[in-house]
Amino acid sequence: MSQGTLYIVSAPSGAGKSSLINALLKDNPRYDMKVSVSHTTRSMRPGEEDGVHYHFVTVDEFKALIEQNAFLEHAEVFGNFYGTSRLWIEEMLAKGIDIFLDIDWQGAQQIRKMMPEAKSIFILPPSREELERRLNARGQDSEEVIAKRMDEARSEISHYNEYDYLIVNDDFDVALIDLKAIIRAERMGEEKQAAKYHDMLDRLLAQ
Amino acid sequence: MSQGTLYIVSAPSGAGKSSLINALLKDNPRYDMKVSVSHTTRSMRPGEEDGVHYHFVTVDEFKALIEQNAFLEHAEVFGNFYGTSRLWIEEMLAKGIDIFLDIDWQGAQQIRKMMPEAKSIFILPPSREELERRLNARGQDSEEVIAKRMDEARSEISHYNEYDYLIVNDDFDVALIDLKAIIRAERMGEEKQAAKYHDMLDRLLAQ
Repeated sequence: MSQGTLYIVSAPSGAGKSSLINALLKDNPRYDMKVSVSHTTRSMRPGEEDGVHYHFVTVDEFKALIEQNAFLEHAEVFGNFYGTSRLWIEEMLAKGIDIFLDIDWQGAQQIRKMMPEAKSIFILPPSREELERRLNARGQDSEEVIAKRMDEARSEISHYNEYDYLIVNDDFDVALIDLKAIIRAERMGEEKQAAKYHDMLDRLLAQ
Repeated sequence: MSQGTLYIVSAPSGAGKSSLINALLKDNPRYDMKVSVSHTTRSMRPGEEDGVHYHFVTVDEFKALIEQNAFLEHAEVFGNFYGTSRLWIEEMLAKGIDIFLDIDWQGAQQIRKMMPEAKSIFILPPSREELERRLNARGQDSEEVIAKRMDEARSEISHYNEYDYLIVNDDFDVALIDLKAIIRAERMGEEKQAAKYHDMLDRLLAQ
């Protein structure tokens, strides 16, 4: 069996990253793709569930996990802590499951150092106007928070060239096909296929 | 505009390489994929056309082209010469067109040296039995030629691990989807997308 691939997925808020990952995992008949569920100290938003969207923990609990070296990466964003469980990811990859890690450019840099075989994807909005429109359409954030996110977006986007793949999310359905193509193509990689078809290759090459 | 990608495609005879490439190019609404038409000194087979399947030339003409350094690679296979025009490929890639090069492992090695940015794909049959069945079903070759091709197949397959991607052509439609995914994913690569969306990225990052 071949190892799963760890996908780092980054984007500014409003680029459609979460919607794309959700749509991808809805069409997952072999259960061979999962999203990494991060630990966070931020407060729960309406509609979120503990253990599904995040593992919600206190600052003290989070600091104890750092001490135990439980995180592949962790970061502070907007005054809250976020971290990625190392053990769970390694278990899933060994089972041949692809893991999607929804993190910002700083987390992405940490993960690349720890797991250089990870593939990274950056989702771009088609324009600043469209990004702002989408952030307003969510109706979730205040004007002040949206202004902050628009500033943060430019900074996040400035790291686009650190990623293996760029997807422009202008038409959602096209962007989803792009994302699926990347995952399918990565599974065609020589090393993964050679592991998957080990016995078949032995028979093809037998004298 | 972004450069096209040069795809090296190799497989033992009967693995379905030509059928896959033909099916791929039939569904090519943007005309952004082309097959490299090789020069050869071998005799034309029924149904083949000069300039479409090959440029059919004499041994003397072929040797003159070698002298002119006109080939990206050339090789002798089963007593016939085959060569790939360098100029045409470079022109097409500059126009953003992906080029498919149908060559054996020896040609592939030469191309990789000349154009290390080329991507290579190896098409595998699911078994020796199925490969032999397909060669017989073509009704084109004598028993002796088929026996020679089966020997040649093992030798060709033994180079599978020199390729970037492996496709197993068990179900033709699945293999075609795999091939299309590779091409779509390669176009999502950071460098190609950054070139394609240069102006959009400038606007997204403007102060």
